[in-house]
Amino acid sequence: MTTGSGPAADPWTLVQPESSRRLLTAAIEAFAEQGYHATTTRDIAQRAGMSPAALYVHYPSKASLLGRISRVGHEAALALVQQAISDGADPLDRLRLLVTRFVAWHAEHHRVARIVQYELGSLPEPDRQVAIRQRREIEALVAEQIREGAACGQLRVDEPRRVARAILSLGVDVARWYDPAGHDTPAVIGALYADLAARMLGARE
Amino acid sequence: MTTGSGPAADPWTLVQPESSRRLLTAAIEAFAEQGYHATTTRDIAQRAGMSPAALYVHYPSKASLLGRISRVGHEAALALVQQAISDGADPLDRLRLLVTRFVAWHAEHHRVARIVQYELGSLPEPDRQVAIRQRREIEALVAEQIREGAACGQLRVDEPRRVARAILSLGVDVARWYDPAGHDTPAVIGALYADLAARMLGARE
Repeated sequence: MTTGSGPAADPWTLVQPESSRRLLTAAIEAFAEQGYHATTTRDIAQRAGMSPAALYVHYPSKASLLGRISRVGHEAALALVQQAISDGADPLDRLRLLVTRFVAWHAEHHRVARIVQYELGSLPEPDRQVAIRQRREIEALVAEQIREGAACGQLRVDEPRRVARAILSLGVDVARWYDPAGHDTPAVIGALYADLAARMLGARE
Repeated sequence: MTTGSGPAADPWTLVQPESSRRLLTAAIEAFAEQGYHATTTRDIAQRAGMSPAALYVHYPSKASLLGRISRVGHEAALALVQQAISDGADPLDRLRLLVTRFVAWHAEHHRVARIVQYELGSLPEPDRQVAIRQRREIEALVAEQIREGAACGQLRVDEPRRVARAILSLGVDVARWYDPAGHDTPAVIGALYADLAARMLGARE
């Protein structure tokens, strides 16, 4: 499947060393199942098959695990957006690729995306500011492509920044309602949303 | 402001008796500030200026408060959708009204909407099943209007149910990113989103 390929396919495999990665995936599982607040560092260590003391070697607190999850997740989303912009032939093509992959990513990684979205208020500093900056960067990249498309007559958009926010919001919210047991695969939803985004952008059909 | 008018303007004022309503608004404040899991029934009683024993007269548990918040919130959203369908002149007009009001509602009531969305997993039964049923009903009403619009040639949509879900998802996610201190009022976002929805629906411009 091409939509899941590229550097953002599974960002967790890039985390080193292996014990740090194991704790991160254990934290994601625990937060997704029990909720962030009800999870203890002991729960996470246990799931990773490690002692609480071994956990503290890598992460000083539960919040620092959340911070790392947020950072890796946002970096993956940003990388995916940059890759789509580099792969596409023109503004509309870039935006279609970007929406397809961004949406498929939020379906595939819905557990991580939910944790990061819902617990933004629990993120410690500077992780919270980093996340906000990464989101603004993604939004600015999308708005820039929209502006270029409007300038060359390919798109008809009056408010590029607001429409960029709406298109990304549509993609992010997939993580909320996506059901892996449902009929629609991440690729199907990605393709449909690329068509809807093209319409929102007033692309000539 | 017309977008906020109608039966859904402030659903909490309808909750009776007054002490029950006071506990509900205190719970919304506490959940929004501290998170659902970190809030105790003692916190809620204190905010409402009542004793924990007085709280239990109205609500047997913290989960039952969440259940009531969910029920009132979903009922308001459903009522708003039904009202828009009754107010509109034709399918496109009904869908535009519906999106305008649904979006403005999710901006105005973003605290309640966030609690209900993020804590769906914490909802006790039968409240969770009721919420799922209310959401399906809203989605079915929107899909029906889309189908009618497509049948009379006003709209061009191949997948009414999926597009209904996408349009509602776009509205729900406003509650996540809406910032009352930001530039955009609920009415401004509602109007922009009605235009975007009309484009997603392939309405003739």
